[in-house]
Amino acid sequence: MPKLWNETIDAHRRAVRDATLDSAAALVAKRGLASITMSQIAEETGIGRATLYKYFPDVEAILVAWHERQVSSHLGHLVEVRDQGGSPREQLKAVLEAYALISHRHHGTELAALLHRGEHVARAQRHLKDFIRDLLIAGAKSGEIRDDFAPDELASYCLHALTAASSLPSKAAVYRLVTVTLAGLRPQV
Amino acid sequence: MPKLWNETIDAHRRAVRDATLDSAAALVAKRGLASITMSQIAEETGIGRATLYKYFPDVEAILVAWHERQVSSHLGHLVEVRDQGGSPREQLKAVLEAYALISHRHHGTELAALLHRGEHVARAQRHLKDFIRDLLIAGAKSGEIRDDFAPDELASYCLHALTAASSLPSKAAVYRLVTVTLAGLRPQV
Repeated sequence: MPKLWNETIDAHRRAVRDATLDSAAALVAKRGLASITMSQIAEETGIGRATLYKYFPDVEAILVAWHERQVSSHLGHLVEVRDQGGSPREQLKAVLEAYALISHRHHGTELAALLHRGEHVARAQRHLKDFIRDLLIAGAKSGEIRDDFAPDELASYCLHALTAASSLPSKAAVYRLVTVTLAGLRPQV
Repeated sequence: MPKLWNETIDAHRRAVRDATLDSAAALVAKRGLASITMSQIAEETGIGRATLYKYFPDVEAILVAWHERQVSSHLGHLVEVRDQGGSPREQLKAVLEAYALISHRHHGTELAALLHRGEHVARAQRHLKDFIRDLLIAGAKSGEIRDDFAPDELASYCLHALTAASSLPSKAAVYRLVTVTLAGLRPQV
């Protein structure tokens, strides 16, 4: 087959896959996790049930794939936020705020509890920790972040402190949490 | 029955109960969670299986009761640590260190994952948060702790930040975590 034809098939497959993930997420949001079936997802996506099974073996596989897409889009968003520039400390602040707001929005749902056990989440957490650690190293070099403790430990402190965001009542409270967390990172005099 | 006799029976029941909890915990530590049976627990405790069933319906109930006892002993320990005195900030530091060391010791076991879903844990968490909040209020009054944010939010920040202790490699790292967390609580100039 010519290359163009392969690309068209790939693009088609990606589109079906993406549409399936969107449908599944919409159905879960509307009806809750327990009642979702492969037939409903196929119908909502506008494809046959047999076709859906060529893409995914079951509902859980669809939800995990959807969550992987979410997580990777969140990480992409944090990279964008960092790349908007500023001093290392300003970049760190912007990234921690963006991360805390994501945690705040996606708190404690039934779906989160199911999906956060996956290996892809552990991988994303490691990736995120390295990302924050690199910002802390840059901040320590520019003298804006404490350099008396290992950046790995400080990254772990940040990420754990910000998990508080998921139980906070408002965005304003999320910003205050980031302020307090950053205060812990200030160079010591 | 005379009062003394009732007290003797009560004391006996408490002793059997305590011995049962100890046995169950020892068995889990030795053989893992999956393989523990009521018969083994009865044997290890030195009582009959029928007697054991008069106290607890199943293994999980025993483990939950054991965990409630653990949690309440941990809270008692934190109260003792606070009552050793010092300024409010010193008391807070001692309590946060004691709490972080407890988290560090009891990290991520199979048993913890099972037990931490219980309602008694949610209750203990609320209790602990109030306890930390009161220390933060005392610290704000004495000018040693920031008073620009609500003590409830700061307590939540503390407890979430210190959950990092469970994945830290050493006690030294736990003390550093408490130092950084406390730095976030310093009054702002």
